[in-house]
Amino acid sequence: MPSTTEVLLLGPGPSPVSRDTLAAMSQPLLGHLDPEFLAVMDRVQTDLRRLFCTENPFTLPVSGTGSAGMEICLANLVEPGDRVVIGIHGVFGGRMKNLVERLGGEVVEVTAPFGEPLDADAMIAAVRGGPTRLVAFVHAETSTGVLIDPAPIAAAAREVGALCVLDCVTSLGGTRVDIDGWGVDAAFSGTQKCLSVPPGLSPVTFSDRALERIAARERQPSTWYLDVGLLSGYWGDERVYHHTAPVSMIFALQSGLQQLHEEGDEARFERHRHVAAALYRGLEVLGLGCLVPAAWRTPMLTTVALPSDLQNEAGLRAAIRSEHRIEIGGGLGPLKGRVWRIGLMGHGARESSVTRVLVAIGEVLAGSGRDVDVASALAAATG
Amino acid sequence: MPSTTEVLLLGPGPSPVSRDTLAAMSQPLLGHLDPEFLAVMDRVQTDLRRLFCTENPFTLPVSGTGSAGMEICLANLVEPGDRVVIGIHGVFGGRMKNLVERLGGEVVEVTAPFGEPLDADAMIAAVRGGPTRLVAFVHAETSTGVLIDPAPIAAAAREVGALCVLDCVTSLGGTRVDIDGWGVDAAFSGTQKCLSVPPGLSPVTFSDRALERIAARERQPSTWYLDVGLLSGYWGDERVYHHTAPVSMIFALQSGLQQLHEEGDEARFERHRHVAAALYRGLEVLGLGCLVPAAWRTPMLTTVALPSDLQNEAGLRAAIRSEHRIEIGGGLGPLKGRVWRIGLMGHGARESSVTRVLVAIGEVLAGSGRDVDVASALAAATG
Repeated sequence: MPSTTEVLLLGPGPSPVSRDTLAAMSQPLLGHLDPEFLAVMDRVQTDLRRLFCTENPFTLPVSGTGSAGMEICLANLVEPGDRVVIGIHGVFGGRMKNLVERLGGEVVEVTAPFGEPLDADAMIAAVRGGPTRLVAFVHAETSTGVLIDPAPIAAAAREVGALCVLDCVTSLGGTRVDIDGWGVDAAFSGTQKCLSVPPGLSPVTFSDRALERIAARERQPSTWYLDVGLLSGYWGDERVYHHTAPVSMIFALQSGLQQLHEEGDEARFERHRHVAAALYRGLEVLGLGCLVPAAWRTPMLTTVALPSDLQNEAGLRAAIRSEHRIEIGGGLGPLKGRVWRIGLMGHGARESSVTRVLVAIGEVLAGSGRDVDVASALAAATG
Repeated sequence: MPSTTEVLLLGPGPSPVSRDTLAAMSQPLLGHLDPEFLAVMDRVQTDLRRLFCTENPFTLPVSGTGSAGMEICLANLVEPGDRVVIGIHGVFGGRMKNLVERLGGEVVEVTAPFGEPLDADAMIAAVRGGPTRLVAFVHAETSTGVLIDPAPIAAAAREVGALCVLDCVTSLGGTRVDIDGWGVDAAFSGTQKCLSVPPGLSPVTFSDRALERIAARERQPSTWYLDVGLLSGYWGDERVYHHTAPVSMIFALQSGLQQLHEEGDEARFERHRHVAAALYRGLEVLGLGCLVPAAWRTPMLTTVALPSDLQNEAGLRAAIRSEHRIEIGGGLGPLKGRVWRIGLMGHGARESSVTRVLVAIGEVLAGSGRDVDVASALAAATG
């Protein structure tokens, strides 16, 4: 058997999974064409539509992680030569650029410094600046902790007849995602963030407009596994065998979605905002600020700006893991060594997580000779 | 919570999963870069190398089902214009052809009727008949129940400098797979067949020769999610974050591989042969023959040839599911309506499965007015 050490997962994902969801995943399996399993698929699709705020029939969990969700969106919607505007305000926008280039698209890049949101006006100007076929960007950047408003960019895309693809990996289940209201044409997420389900599935949704674009492609997508047309045959009314669905993972997703439904979407989003605010207050007392100004922060993922004189941040994180059994994340890309990333996502977004992580951070900082007042930090967080 | 009806899974997969593996999967998660999880990854890779009979460093479970394994092999190894010889002796060979065409390869097709093995001489002639870059075929065809010997075809590929790709989805863990001995360059499998782990991962292995071919590509593969170079960074010594590994599924795979190791590979293969032979004997007494002549049968998956006067085979399968709680599979492609597919795979390959499925088949046949002797069938099977 693998490890029995339980670790509190407060990094950028995976997030903690509830006992109910772990139990759901460990049920005996059903066949992927079994009538009882098909009913589970239907319930999962219904719950995902509610959470994405969409009526898109093509709304389902792809059999891969969030990156597979990125790939199904772009591999089906990009054709060679397409002008694709990519907003890059972190590592994950950069990945979309890389993939679009592999697919033969012509990337027009709009960048923002890590820790700042995309400039909507710059995105809109880029969309209007040529025969744009697709616009793609990240809602909540997991590498920086910045949340942006997709509405004006999606509207600009629609005006010029371009499709809009949104990365909702970290946002879905933690803050409102309004696919139909914003006019987004394709979006993808991951189960291991605010849904609090193990990694392995990527909820996606495609508008009918996006499906029409795919149907009109000159060539088939270069992927068979992630071909939207083939997946429609299995998840739609026909139930044509495509690949063997990850049955146990879908049981887990159903359980996670059910818990979300019982809590209520708005109550869950408010819980994420509430515990994030507690974390900000506690960090401040410990002398740690956030990389991102308050107005731009996404509550699910906080990037802690490390003091420039802090030595060996990786060693301190390792101590938090080994001595306090808490995982937090380091920085990615240009933020490596400069920030810590603390995720308060899904089942992990609770006050007890905030107090545990503040104690752990306070103690390792004290151990490295810094003057910190953990008790005051806890009082500020919970007061 | 989803269903609580336990169904004995004797279709073409998923196969039954042991309680230990279900329990392993329901452990609290670890982060995908956690030191304890990295140790689990190492053990999984070691066990997979043993099972594939290979020393290939690049041997790992891909974060997708068996079809994702097919895709990682072909999307990384095929370049536009490549001459690719595909052996098609069932539905799954046809899929490889479809994917190679999407990737811009030039397919040379060698076919065999469903229920017969590929003709090795025809394959070898096709390999030699042009500047072949790749040869791909299926070891154990899940749609027909035919097992072939890959050795002569792989040898012919090596002679002409072509790479050989083998689909081991149904064979791995149920019969010997000898990647290095045969000289196969890339192979893929699935967890939900003879490994008795839920669907969701695809064990793959690439030879160094295959990795050199990828490194020499003119253009990057069209996939980011399944890019071998990027995956090497995470599964290799560097541990560079690529995507969030499906942690719980990898716990399950570790458990399944450990059970396999404890049983012993050869003992497990013999168990599969032994229970398949029992099934053949019992079916014969019920008046049901096998589609595939004895010499070509794969023990893990038996295609039962249905009598031409049998009415409503789908209804009988539904009755086996609802009245006996057993899943068996129907025919795929040209075999639809003509065969049943009975999988005796991994944890499901045991005498009790054989007796339960013979009773179920016997009773539904009797219920449809056929004269069958279930007791004699059981005696023949277990005697």
